[in-house]
Amino acid sequence: MAGAIDFYFDFSSPYGYLAAEMIEALGQRVNRAVNWHPILLGVVFKSTGGQPLTMAPMKGPYSENDFRRSAAFYGVPYKAPSVFPIATQNPARAVLWMQEKHPAHAKKFTLELYRAFFRGDRDISKLDVIGDIAAGLGYNADEVIAATQSDDIKGKLKANVEAAIAKGIFGSPFFIVDGEQFWGADRLPMLEAWLTKGAWNY
Amino acid sequence: MAGAIDFYFDFSSPYGYLAAEMIEALGQRVNRAVNWHPILLGVVFKSTGGQPLTMAPMKGPYSENDFRRSAAFYGVPYKAPSVFPIATQNPARAVLWMQEKHPAHAKKFTLELYRAFFRGDRDISKLDVIGDIAAGLGYNADEVIAATQSDDIKGKLKANVEAAIAKGIFGSPFFIVDGEQFWGADRLPMLEAWLTKGAWNY
Repeated sequence: MAGAIDFYFDFSSPYGYLAAEMIEALGQRVNRAVNWHPILLGVVFKSTGGQPLTMAPMKGPYSENDFRRSAAFYGVPYKAPSVFPIATQNPARAVLWMQEKHPAHAKKFTLELYRAFFRGDRDISKLDVIGDIAAGLGYNADEVIAATQSDDIKGKLKANVEAAIAKGIFGSPFFIVDGEQFWGADRLPMLEAWLTKGAWNY
Repeated sequence: MAGAIDFYFDFSSPYGYLAAEMIEALGQRVNRAVNWHPILLGVVFKSTGGQPLTMAPMKGPYSENDFRRSAAFYGVPYKAPSVFPIATQNPARAVLWMQEKHPAHAKKFTLELYRAFFRGDRDISKLDVIGDIAAGLGYNADEVIAATQSDDIKGKLKANVEAAIAKGIFGSPFFIVDGEQFWGADRLPMLEAWLTKGAWNY
């Protein structure tokens, strides 16, 4: 198998959620592994001067509409969370812990977190919600919660976000494959074409 | 035929150019007329706090790459202009004049201007370039140039841009059909699906 697709996402990103629902099937079609990387868009925006879409004038109402419409277009269930956006340090750290300790379950855990937020209207910034979702997969809630507050995991997330910024990542979802960057769930058809039609020159 | 697709674009917008190359074929497939509206993104950005993509940190280099890649993905010829971005009052005014005086030629003239800029590296902010392109379609260059400086056409463009902002338009290309808004050349498949699959609920 050729090089993996690196998939960067923030847990408060609706388009990140839509991409998370689609990227593994894409990876299978193009015979590429997918590495999932939770990042913190808030930290990224401090470097880039970006801001959450929903807070931008005029773009805000459009975007909230486009989240729902895009989900319907892709056939992915979606319900706008009542608390939005949220701080995403805690779910991101929980995923890093799961990737380290129980890698076979990490993608499923990530999707469960995303679905809890964007289907179930559960505030996944809350430690008890994260613990509950981990418990649903058979893990000890207290252990996951403790991990999100450990200096080790905190430091790893910080380093990962800094590494992502250094690579030029400025949004969510963001993909890098064979050195090529793609930003947005709406770029997935282009990413797939680029891989299957032989990395065209342009 | 049901209601038209309103297509808003700025002449300095690469994605606007890509949309201009594709929107009429889409209109024919869905049996909708397309009304073309040149706008001034610079004026829009003063209202919305937006900025040209290429000037945003990190997004800039990515975007320049994505312009070329998107053009190749859609099969549209594209060459990055050496002077970019440009002021677009003059080509926008020339199009308004053509729409008023010679409506049957206005879309062709618009495409010729876009192609001169994004294929031929000609600076279409310059009046002599605009006159030359109009002359190529059989019109009097001096007449077109004079029209771009007339108070009547200047006032019409100003009013059109203000009307666009009032409708919530914040980028280029932008489409409105049956009251539904779509932003970006990458939303054309969604626009088409929305029209052909019966304006789904979401």
